[in-house]
Amino acid sequence: MSNKYVYLFREGNASMRELLGGKGANLAEMTNLGLPIPQGFTVTTEACTQYYNDNQTISDEIKEQIFNALKELERMTGKQFGNPENPLLVSVRSGARASMPGMMDTILNLGINEEVVQAMASKNERFAYDSYRRFIQMFSDVVMEIPKPLFEGAIDEMKAKRGVKLDTELNAEDLKELVVTFKEIYRREHGSEFPTNPSEQLIEAIEAVFRSWNNPRAITYRRLNDIPSDWGTAVNVQEMVFGNMGDDCGTGVAFTRNPATGENAIFGEYLMNAQGEDVVAGIRTPKTITELEQTNKQAYDDFIMYANKLERHYKDMQDMEFTIEHGKLFFLQTRNGKRTANAALKIAVDLVDEGMITEKEAVLRVEPNQLDQLLHPNFDTEKLQSATPITTGLAASPGAATGKVVFTAERAVELHNAGEKDLILVRLETSPEDIDGMTVCYGVLTVRGGMTSHAAVVARGMGTCCVAGCGELVVDEENRVFETKDGNQYHEGDWISLDGSTGKVYGEKIDTVDASVSGNFARFMGWADQYRQMEVRANADTPKDAKQAREFGAQGIGLCRTEHMFFAPERISAIREMIVSKTVEQRKKALEKILPMQRGDFEGLFRAMDGYPVTIRLLDPPLHEFLPHTDDEIAELSKEMGLSFEELKNIVAGLHEFNPMMGHRGCRLDVTYPEIGEMQTRAIIEAAINVTREGIKVTPEIMIPLVGEIKELKYVKDIITRTASEVMKEQNMEIHYMVGTMIEIPRAALLADEIAKEAEFFSFGTNDLTQMTFGFSRDDAGKFLDEYYSKKIYENDPFKKLDQTGVGKLVEMAAKAGKQTRPNIELGICGEHGGEPASVEYCHRVGLTYVSCSPYRVPIARLAASQAAIKNPR
Amino acid sequence: MSNKYVYLFREGNASMRELLGGKGANLAEMTNLGLPIPQGFTVTTEACTQYYNDNQTISDEIKEQIFNALKELERMTGKQFGNPENPLLVSVRSGARASMPGMMDTILNLGINEEVVQAMASKNERFAYDSYRRFIQMFSDVVMEIPKPLFEGAIDEMKAKRGVKLDTELNAEDLKELVVTFKEIYRREHGSEFPTNPSEQLIEAIEAVFRSWNNPRAITYRRLNDIPSDWGTAVNVQEMVFGNMGDDCGTGVAFTRNPATGENAIFGEYLMNAQGEDVVAGIRTPKTITELEQTNKQAYDDFIMYANKLERHYKDMQDMEFTIEHGKLFFLQTRNGKRTANAALKIAVDLVDEGMITEKEAVLRVEPNQLDQLLHPNFDTEKLQSATPITTGLAASPGAATGKVVFTAERAVELHNAGEKDLILVRLETSPEDIDGMTVCYGVLTVRGGMTSHAAVVARGMGTCCVAGCGELVVDEENRVFETKDGNQYHEGDWISLDGSTGKVYGEKIDTVDASVSGNFARFMGWADQYRQMEVRANADTPKDAKQAREFGAQGIGLCRTEHMFFAPERISAIREMIVSKTVEQRKKALEKILPMQRGDFEGLFRAMDGYPVTIRLLDPPLHEFLPHTDDEIAELSKEMGLSFEELKNIVAGLHEFNPMMGHRGCRLDVTYPEIGEMQTRAIIEAAINVTREGIKVTPEIMIPLVGEIKELKYVKDIITRTASEVMKEQNMEIHYMVGTMIEIPRAALLADEIAKEAEFFSFGTNDLTQMTFGFSRDDAGKFLDEYYSKKIYENDPFKKLDQTGVGKLVEMAAKAGKQTRPNIELGICGEHGGEPASVEYCHRVGLTYVSCSPYRVPIARLAASQAAIKNPR
Repeated sequence: MSNKYVYLFREGNASMRELLGGKGANLAEMTNLGLPIPQGFTVTTEACTQYYNDNQTISDEIKEQIFNALKELERMTGKQFGNPENPLLVSVRSGARASMPGMMDTILNLGINEEVVQAMASKNERFAYDSYRRFIQMFSDVVMEIPKPLFEGAIDEMKAKRGVKLDTELNAEDLKELVVTFKEIYRREHGSEFPTNPSEQLIEAIEAVFRSWNNPRAITYRRLNDIPSDWGTAVNVQEMVFGNMGDDCGTGVAFTRNPATGENAIFGEYLMNAQGEDVVAGIRTPKTITELEQTNKQAYDDFIMYANKLERHYKDMQDMEFTIEHGKLFFLQTRNGKRTANAALKIAVDLVDEGMITEKEAVLRVEPNQLDQLLHPNFDTEKLQSATPITTGLAASPGAATGKVVFTAERAVELHNAGEKDLILVRLETSPEDIDGMTVCYGVLTVRGGMTSHAAVVARGMGTCCVAGCGELVVDEENRVFETKDGNQYHEGDWISLDGSTGKVYGEKIDTVDASVSGNFARFMGWADQYRQMEVRANADTPKDAKQAREFGAQGIGLCRTEHMFFAPERISAIREMIVSKTVEQRKKALEKILPMQRGDFEGLFRAMDGYPVTIRLLDPPLHEFLPHTDDEIAELSKEMGLSFEELKNIVAGLHEFNPMMGHRGCRLDVTYPEIGEMQTRAIIEAAINVTREGIKVTPEIMIPLVGEIKELKYVKDIITRTASEVMKEQNMEIHYMVGTMIEIPRAALLADEIAKEAEFFSFGTNDLTQMTFGFSRDDAGKFLDEYYSKKIYENDPFKKLDQTGVGKLVEMAAKAGKQTRPNIELGICGEHGGEPASVEYCHRVGLTYVSCSPYRVPIARLAASQAAIKNPR
Repeated sequence: MSNKYVYLFREGNASMRELLGGKGANLAEMTNLGLPIPQGFTVTTEACTQYYNDNQTISDEIKEQIFNALKELERMTGKQFGNPENPLLVSVRSGARASMPGMMDTILNLGINEEVVQAMASKNERFAYDSYRRFIQMFSDVVMEIPKPLFEGAIDEMKAKRGVKLDTELNAEDLKELVVTFKEIYRREHGSEFPTNPSEQLIEAIEAVFRSWNNPRAITYRRLNDIPSDWGTAVNVQEMVFGNMGDDCGTGVAFTRNPATGENAIFGEYLMNAQGEDVVAGIRTPKTITELEQTNKQAYDDFIMYANKLERHYKDMQDMEFTIEHGKLFFLQTRNGKRTANAALKIAVDLVDEGMITEKEAVLRVEPNQLDQLLHPNFDTEKLQSATPITTGLAASPGAATGKVVFTAERAVELHNAGEKDLILVRLETSPEDIDGMTVCYGVLTVRGGMTSHAAVVARGMGTCCVAGCGELVVDEENRVFETKDGNQYHEGDWISLDGSTGKVYGEKIDTVDASVSGNFARFMGWADQYRQMEVRANADTPKDAKQAREFGAQGIGLCRTEHMFFAPERISAIREMIVSKTVEQRKKALEKILPMQRGDFEGLFRAMDGYPVTIRLLDPPLHEFLPHTDDEIAELSKEMGLSFEELKNIVAGLHEFNPMMGHRGCRLDVTYPEIGEMQTRAIIEAAINVTREGIKVTPEIMIPLVGEIKELKYVKDIITRTASEVMKEQNMEIHYMVGTMIEIPRAALLADEIAKEAEFFSFGTNDLTQMTFGFSRDDAGKFLDEYYSKKIYENDPFKKLDQTGVGKLVEMAAKAGKQTRPNIELGICGEHGGEPASVEYCHRVGLTYVSCSPYRVPIARLAASQAAIKNPR
């Protein structure tokens, strides 16, 4: 039996998203709901997979199904493909399971050729040639990969010749001439005539859409959005309706609620006498949807009615595309709209209040990662008041950003890789090619484009602050400078600040202040916490971080890295004294100097975390990290320390390691220098006793890093328990504390049943575990991982998203084995994955007790843990 | 119910080795056989474990059992502990499950105190005080850790005062005086009087033996000999018989066959009027056992009779200790004797020919590691003829060694660590403290001591060449020089050569030639191969190595490291050209220069391995290994390559890695530079076609290193199969080849079921797998592993002996998963563990197809695999 690879819209429905893609499934659903939809059919995602399996060809079987569907479409529309008298023109558009806006390709007006255009011209000449030149342009770009600028250059030339500014000012003759020029460009670049057979055009276009699934920007987008590369895309072939037939025509996009604020009011834009991407490309500045009421009340009223119907049907804010052809409204697409985090929260809360969804459903409606936008600093209000904006644009994506100007995406990536983190991308307009550059910038400023322009949509999706449409600015990308209306110039590297919530741009650096959780956010998080089964702790090394973490809802510290406390100038000299010690006695003397400082650190943490557990990891990095490495620095330090240059140089050389990641660090330090563990334990227990006397409740969890063997754990644990007993006896007070281990060495995971005999808790250190399991170091993998992404060997950075099949297998084995040995064992994760939603869900599924992440990701982890619990009841 | 911790000799037997230790079990067995054995009892190894569990104390329960046994011993002997009239004196000796000669401690004559000695003196004054001074000396050393040299110094002083040379020349008065001096030393060093209560002496001595299980040299010995530290030692308490009662007394050691050659003739030495260690300490030069026939025919005949009885009973060559007291023979110990590899082979073959054991039993009689001695070079006969010996000593351990003189064990270790491998240790005599130094030397030369001296016994065990008893030499260890009889001086660093088979010493470097397998060795290996179920291949990169491997019985090449072919001067410049290439085209051009060389390499290997598989690993190391790193070298090379210094320096800097072990290497190189894999595949397939045309049979197995993910494997495999098809088409010839992968990254082991879909074979790269699984790099772990050994966290170097519990778990999982996916998958190991007997046995147990090791270890692996198959039928 043969597979069904092509579905008419009326054959599908919204539940068939996997097969038909999001766009196809929704077109089918809207057809069923009775909305005015130009009819058509969908070539399935399975056909795409088959296309790749068949060595990038469309099989005869699939072709046959396509042409059968086309025949049915001709029957329904009464038009005929390639028939000049009554031509059927179609659009060919991609549509994956997950929305990938702007990432893949669209071809409009397919079915035109010289005969058809002449027949069309006899009715409306300008429209006919405008449609034809658009088709040639899109087909050449998408199917034949002929560079777009060749065509755009020809249009610019024509506009200059005619002395006009806008495309719409070109007349039919101009467009006719352009068609000739375009065909010449095609012939020159491609080496053959532009294809005239509509069926051939159609198959080539469908293949091109399939191919576009694997274009570099789609691959990058998938990686950033965790979309598997084996899903494939569907292709939608739909009868054209025309927004470019004259001034009673137009095309637009709209949201049922405001995607920036969540306000419950239709929000959208449209352009008259325009087609396709004209609105979102930001070339002409569009009108707001409410203006449509004046122009065409019927179309407006219909639009509002259908929009409300769609929102009620999908129970979520909708993002719709529509076209008006000679005054009549058509819907081309609907989907759940992308929105800012603030809007997502407001919409979720409002939908609950409106009785449309339950609290539990609401919790599932917000992408945890999106909260990131709300957790980053805003401008310091005081500082902001004294600043004067240099220009104002559209508040396209909220938040505050301060940074140095950069003018191209490539340069932004280059500077970022060189260590510059404070960057703001300033562009005339952005395009999908800029996505990598946008990712590394704190903010984006564009001269052209509206709220639905590429820059605005993408920035909102990323949670990056964006001010769009700053039309007053003159940007000279080549010379890396922009000029304000009053003539001030800003060069690459100059500081500016963007307020994405007001659209204001400042020509200076403005300090920012921390975010907090309140209002809708707090209410929503309250719902989320009801369902959560894992604790969320934070990785924090200072009382300041600990306080921030508590404000964000952390239920303890899952990782305090004690070495971070050693780098302060007054401390590092004591550490260095310890390192250069020749005897145990010298080393103990140096450690005694550090003891009171460490004790003070821990007291601060314990106070900040009153009532919650605090997990403290013993010293982890190799000792050479505390010593300088260049001759000049060594010379200076040797004077300071009263050593000869050679002595110190020898010590540094002696500590050199070939592979520091796999060297003398972690608990290996305590095995060779037990006095370090003794000092740290003493500091922890003394601090706990001191704050207990103040009335603070504290349970220190002492964590031993880099364990690979139970005897090693036991050796270090013995140092800890011996010292703790000593201190408690001295101080005449008992303190409850726990001793556990990191699981970050594969061997520890493999032997977790043994290890659990001595460890009261496991904390999965998935950063190191990922390095060891993959056999590549994070510092070095950058050199080849890009090739691995572009060759689709790895789809995600395993240091960002936990590798569930490989590293996860070890985590799961160890969690299971640990529980078998010690049923009440506490299981946590403290790698960066602890704040990554997919990884958090995984942690829930394998039964961890808690996740720990950076303070700024605590609410994300809380929401992710909640969603995980709802989706995977334990 | 209480445990039985103490067994009388008559209560045990040879099968109780685990409980009673080797010495105790054999004393029990000899008692049952009716041999003349001084009676006694054994405190079990379980008592030792209990002692450590009880915080290093002997429990009251065990003490009670000891004193009950002592009472029974008094009853049997009719003597009484501490009774001056009829005193029972005992020896207290350690005895572990595995023989650890000289590693732990012995105390003789225990039970003497001032009253007892006086009573004894009334019968034989010299004997009484000789026994007493020996007891004080041993008790002080073993129990109280008072340095031996203090006592030896006192003896030397006494000898000087009396103007005599030998201990035996001291008279009773002298010894009496020495006892007083010894007690003074004890009082001064220990701060209290020497203990007079025999029961107290006994318990202290037993505790000291238990403690000696964990002295540093015992720990080192266990590590070198794979003896687990949790076994513990038993303690044997035995009635004393005295070899030091006069000239009709003596003590000796003997073997039933010659331990150096295997010759079937009693072989041994004895000293008259001596006790305990006097014979093996090499202080006086002993007489051969055959001389006893003249002195005491009865004792000699008895000895021969009992020795033959023991050999027939144990069906193996015996190593016996005996004492003659007033002409009457007593056996103190028997055990299977240590022997050279040649002797082991001869004895095994002879025992089969004598009908005493089967071929299968014979195969189990030779320690695989011992064959190592036979596989190393001997002197080039021609070169040897032109050399004149500078002295001749005893041929104490066979083999040939040439190297630079070093005078202390510490200095040998120091030089070895600094990279000096050609070392020969020259000592007055060796002691157990020298064991680390002996391990790193090619040969050992001593001035004092016989065939059973410490140096001789230990060297034979290690397979290290040794010439002992070169009494003509004058060694000045302090000034690092020795002088021959004719006044020539040899300083540290001067070359000498030792012939351990003739005892000749040469004052120059003498070249050596390779070993071969013939005679008993070949016959024995033939038996071994009958039982073997795994193939044995070799790691070989050159035709020369490949030929050597075949001579040693390799059945193919399991690992050819192609990078080793790149370091020759004429090649490295092409490699460097490839590395500095800026475009794919430049890189391909450079690779084309390498192609014919690589093809030639492979042709050579294929010819050498005609009929056997050859596994070729694609380029593995990071590219920076082929470039220089110092500024001077970079400057020189930049001139050579026509680059500016800065350009080349930048390239070198750009290739720098923080953790090269976890960097851009292995198949990651082929993913980023597919043209490298293409060139290597082309070289392999073209070479295979060329030699096939010559009539050679070849199956190349192309191996992809460092795989962690199936898509990565697939990507590189596609490069290989595509290129191979191209070449076969060009050459119009089909070649059978395989494509497989190393399993050396934990993730590959975890996902082996997936990986096996694309891999026709797995080869476990347990060197890297060990690094990644333990999370420490071999280059860096040296800095802390010694602490781990001394703290008993790890007992073995996991890079030498496969960590079966951790790394082995991954190997086992992967082998199982691989077979599940692909039942006929070929499974091999090519890490250094492939030549380590315990690891080979493990490989057999988990079902590997083959092991691959260095050519010189091939016979070892063959024997180990055979023994594994006999012990673990599949």
